[in-house]
Amino acid sequence: MTNSIVKTIFLALTFVSSMIHCQEKLSDKYNLMPWPQEIQSNANRVKIAKDFTISINKKEGRVYNYATNIIRRITNRTGVFVDQGFPLLNDKNATVRVSFDEVAELKLGVDESYELDVNNNFVEISAKTDIGALRALETLVQLIDHNENSFFVNGVVIKDNPRYGWRGLMIDVSRHFHPVEVLKRNLDAMASMKMNVFHWHLSDDQGFRFKSDTYPKLHELGSDGLYYTKPQIRDIVSYANKRGIRVVPEIDVPGHATAILAAYPELGSKDGYDYKIERFSGVFHPTLNPINPKVYTFLDNLFAEIVPLFPDVYFHIGGDENEGKHWDENHEIQKFKNKKGFKNNHDLQTYFNIKLQKILAKYDRKLMGWDEIMTDGMPKSAIIHSWRGVNEGFKDGTLIEAVKKGYQAVLSNDYYIDRVQSVDHHYLFDPAGDVPLTKEEESRVLGGEVTMWSELVTPLTVDSRIWPRTAAIAERFWSSKEVKDLKSMRKRLAVVSFQLEELGITHLSYRNQLLRNIAKSKNTESLELLTAIFEPLKIYTRNEGGTEYKTFSPFTLFADACVVDAEDAYNFNLLVDSYSDNPTTEKSEELKGYFSKWKEGHAKFKKLKNNPILNELGNHYENLSKVSSIYLEILKGGSLSKSKGNEIKETIEKLKKPMVDTELVIVSGMEKLLKKLKKEGSIK
Amino acid sequence: MTNSIVKTIFLALTFVSSMIHCQEKLSDKYNLMPWPQEIQSNANRVKIAKDFTISINKKEGRVYNYATNIIRRITNRTGVFVDQGFPLLNDKNATVRVSFDEVAELKLGVDESYELDVNNNFVEISAKTDIGALRALETLVQLIDHNENSFFVNGVVIKDNPRYGWRGLMIDVSRHFHPVEVLKRNLDAMASMKMNVFHWHLSDDQGFRFKSDTYPKLHELGSDGLYYTKPQIRDIVSYANKRGIRVVPEIDVPGHATAILAAYPELGSKDGYDYKIERFSGVFHPTLNPINPKVYTFLDNLFAEIVPLFPDVYFHIGGDENEGKHWDENHEIQKFKNKKGFKNNHDLQTYFNIKLQKILAKYDRKLMGWDEIMTDGMPKSAIIHSWRGVNEGFKDGTLIEAVKKGYQAVLSNDYYIDRVQSVDHHYLFDPAGDVPLTKEEESRVLGGEVTMWSELVTPLTVDSRIWPRTAAIAERFWSSKEVKDLKSMRKRLAVVSFQLEELGITHLSYRNQLLRNIAKSKNTESLELLTAIFEPLKIYTRNEGGTEYKTFSPFTLFADACVVDAEDAYNFNLLVDSYSDNPTTEKSEELKGYFSKWKEGHAKFKKLKNNPILNELGNHYENLSKVSSIYLEILKGGSLSKSKGNEIKETIEKLKKPMVDTELVIVSGMEKLLKKLKKEGSIK
Repeated sequence: MTNSIVKTIFLALTFVSSMIHCQEKLSDKYNLMPWPQEIQSNANRVKIAKDFTISINKKEGRVYNYATNIIRRITNRTGVFVDQGFPLLNDKNATVRVSFDEVAELKLGVDESYELDVNNNFVEISAKTDIGALRALETLVQLIDHNENSFFVNGVVIKDNPRYGWRGLMIDVSRHFHPVEVLKRNLDAMASMKMNVFHWHLSDDQGFRFKSDTYPKLHELGSDGLYYTKPQIRDIVSYANKRGIRVVPEIDVPGHATAILAAYPELGSKDGYDYKIERFSGVFHPTLNPINPKVYTFLDNLFAEIVPLFPDVYFHIGGDENEGKHWDENHEIQKFKNKKGFKNNHDLQTYFNIKLQKILAKYDRKLMGWDEIMTDGMPKSAIIHSWRGVNEGFKDGTLIEAVKKGYQAVLSNDYYIDRVQSVDHHYLFDPAGDVPLTKEEESRVLGGEVTMWSELVTPLTVDSRIWPRTAAIAERFWSSKEVKDLKSMRKRLAVVSFQLEELGITHLSYRNQLLRNIAKSKNTESLELLTAIFEPLKIYTRNEGGTEYKTFSPFTLFADACVVDAEDAYNFNLLVDSYSDNPTTEKSEELKGYFSKWKEGHAKFKKLKNNPILNELGNHYENLSKVSSIYLEILKGGSLSKSKGNEIKETIEKLKKPMVDTELVIVSGMEKLLKKLKKEGSIK
Repeated sequence: MTNSIVKTIFLALTFVSSMIHCQEKLSDKYNLMPWPQEIQSNANRVKIAKDFTISINKKEGRVYNYATNIIRRITNRTGVFVDQGFPLLNDKNATVRVSFDEVAELKLGVDESYELDVNNNFVEISAKTDIGALRALETLVQLIDHNENSFFVNGVVIKDNPRYGWRGLMIDVSRHFHPVEVLKRNLDAMASMKMNVFHWHLSDDQGFRFKSDTYPKLHELGSDGLYYTKPQIRDIVSYANKRGIRVVPEIDVPGHATAILAAYPELGSKDGYDYKIERFSGVFHPTLNPINPKVYTFLDNLFAEIVPLFPDVYFHIGGDENEGKHWDENHEIQKFKNKKGFKNNHDLQTYFNIKLQKILAKYDRKLMGWDEIMTDGMPKSAIIHSWRGVNEGFKDGTLIEAVKKGYQAVLSNDYYIDRVQSVDHHYLFDPAGDVPLTKEEESRVLGGEVTMWSELVTPLTVDSRIWPRTAAIAERFWSSKEVKDLKSMRKRLAVVSFQLEELGITHLSYRNQLLRNIAKSKNTESLELLTAIFEPLKIYTRNEGGTEYKTFSPFTLFADACVVDAEDAYNFNLLVDSYSDNPTTEKSEELKGYFSKWKEGHAKFKKLKNNPILNELGNHYENLSKVSSIYLEILKGGSLSKSKGNEIKETIEKLKKPMVDTELVIVSGMEKLLKKLKKEGSIK
């Protein structure tokens, strides 16, 4: 028997029954995310020292460059001065020995499996494809641990492969433009979380971001000078490919087309309409005219220019949120509908979509579109991108409908991270859900995509909106359905979130940058403290009606410095729960710690030189300080009189009101604590 | 009389005698840098509110885009939601009204003058060229101030123009590669300091960074995959041009050519030599062979490829630090030298340079080179880039020699910011110095260039090495020679340094990013405190012999998180001076504040989970804490016994030793304080 067969049998015997269920225990030791399919702990440790080397079995493919970056990341993290800055070839004594069978063509369904084995003094990685090896190298980096004397790779045997083949992140570069470096660092972060599709939302009402030679007015009149050139697109696609990430472009038509029509109004459905780049957010009326043959010539020529830049077989044509108002107002379009016997605008849009599908087929591309495209007549080769679910009145969501109808589908509903909801919410949402599906139907669930719509997001803040929540969703896409323990996820997420900074993700560093600007001072401690208990308003309430903010409004505000899952708030609320169940002196001390911090924070805040931005925070901070003082007094043994109780209540009511587009998320905890304190009388 | 003539006379009368000498007083109110040539204060205030607008007199040229960015910067800084996100044209009611006469061709000597007048409720800017208008807009942004109710432009009348036409920053992208976004944000920062030349050091022993189609091995074998494509270079040059910044490329030959020779060894001077990309720092032997005709064909073809990307007339050929060792070892080269009657390798290099000058002339380019090129026979059309001065044994520096010989010259000696010296040092160094020069000679001093050599500098740390010191040097290049008050400079520098972050400069945010990595924790307070009193080792002692660090060594270390002019150290040392002159209770309290901070810092430091990187800081921190405790005790009224005095002395001796490539820069202050305390006996 060969070595590898022995190992396979060994793995099979060991893993089958036990390992997934051990995740909670093993995740104390290993901060892996996404959690691997099969994992077994061992006591080995491979030290990272001067003589650390990575060897690969061939230079062809993606591994050589990737492993070079892995060496940089390891030395940067550990401060170790290695002698070998580049991978070796077929070195039998290397610290990390990587082998893969073939260089993969990057496409949907590519083999990404790998095995990783930490032996006594070396690490062995094997994979069928080079892409599998990249996934293994990310696992390797996550296995690095340290004691006070050295850094080392923690012992483990892993056999891993993804649950879903489509694990995507969409970035909207229209509402706010995101330059090449923003995309590159996010591609790095995606790769670190083993994600493999970057969906590039290139056009919308607020901007058309592709520099076309055929239709130069698109970028000249439709982009405010913010667009990608062809070399930049090639650069991004190649950068992604090197990381095993496919790139799917989206040109959103026939709706969401204001920027296109600002450049070529003759393609619009409403004659004489004054098309101008949209500055607000929302759903707008400008729509391509589906009965104008020039529209199809335009799209044909445009696609002909775009397609060669994107080797992937899928092309996203958007197709969402066309309310057809401008179609209804156009007499010719109505006549056409009647003539064709179309019952409604959906039928007309299907007519439009099928024309597009044929254009794309000419260029060997398959159509993908938001779930509105799922109408009778749409060929089954199309991928349905499901964005509407229970919130939009669909009982089981459009994904289930799609796979039952025979379409392949990708889920984004409930992975809308711009809704500013807790990571727990997104994490627990399973792409296939619990609706019974046949094996065949199940196989048509390709996976999911996180969507970063960027109405309220700039290059400075975008990372903080995507990360770390997307890491947990990436686990949902990669790991077994059974991996869903929130405590384990939160614990591991905290570690990988910290490490994302190594890749240039700014979700940690951006905050003080914003706070310095708000405070006009380097003394941002008192504000930092607030950002740990305030969160931006959720589910689009920050920008009610889409008209509070324009695309050029400042996004350097307190709400931008706040993030969802505010750390202190989360821990405080948990602490109150635990205290309510079982009050101990220790917990009381911890509670006092929070209230003191908030009280002292206000004292520090008052020392800052006031300015119009700070001004807006003053009242709330004062109320927070006031209520903290009373809690402190009571927790220190003072009595909870009726008047104090009322004062707390009244102040909390005030604190419940949104402040500059944020909400204080400790109020529920404070209320619960008040209840508990009332029940007990005063607490010593 | 027209309005503008009246104004001119008024300005002339008011300014001539007085304003420069008032700089110290005016600089209390205005945080302008570089300081303008003529400035007069007034009491006007123009409020920044929702209705804020900028109008320009024509859309052609650079101002429209630039002003758009200015609006973004103003709204981001102030949080004001303006209605107009883009400049208006010829709007007589605009808040800021910009007019310029002509769109300039960007070249050496272009008119950059402007006038800026803050009236009662609007700001008037006028300039001869669009580039002058850009300079004025930067002044406008620096004039923004606030009280607690609003942001406003501070009243002033300014008439300004640069002292020197060449105000450059060189970035070495060879020793460490710096991606496009690093260069772009630095171009933004340069423009904000009214700098106008970006010198792009594209090649050296450690890497050749231009993707050549003619000689693809250059980037394939000479760059480790880190290079600029032509579209990227065009992008940078265009980005710079839009900001009124010329770009001068440098291909360093015949020395510093290891990366070229790693690709094309046949062009080298030593047959059979194993040329490999250099990983260390220093001066190396690989040199192009000046008697091989293929070398000139190579350079001719290469320059033919590079020149069209850079519209500027100057082309930098390096020419520095060729010790000629490989020439000496080559028999054929020696024979050639004898045949030609060359006395030494300098003569041979002159032969080489003049051939290059002729090649460049074919492409309408003028040669620029480091001061070694200044040999007999070098045409006077060449620009001498002076880098050697007193340190290198030149009494008056090579700049003076050059302009006396009839060359135009640019000074970099003493603007070598990689030497990690205090800003005061660079600031006080005047390009023309005090050597008497004729008017003509003086006119040949074109200006100066800050040089950012990047042996020890990565994209993560480079901003912290360039800024803020370069802002003060930019003032040296722009402002009058008489503007040299260190206190005023330091005061204004602190403000502009703070504001540089608005442009994406990472010199403030990078630090905590590094410290988080060092501490493996978000609790970096105790380390931050150290970075305010430790500085990286100076004048190349950090990397003695060039062999401690390789290009791929980690630059995520404590020394990288430290910067020159450490803030607390500077203030502490000043405080000790002041206390020594005149000890007061208040100053004693301040001193106690420092010592308490350092003592408490150590207590916090000990709470961090130890790791190998932190380990190295522990000893020094403990000694700092120890000595701080004793000082505290004495300052609180304890007696200064002989044993305590000795303990302080001994501990300071230990603290004088470098720690992980940094030095503690409060030791001089601590020693001075000890002396004072000894003199006085114990202090109450």
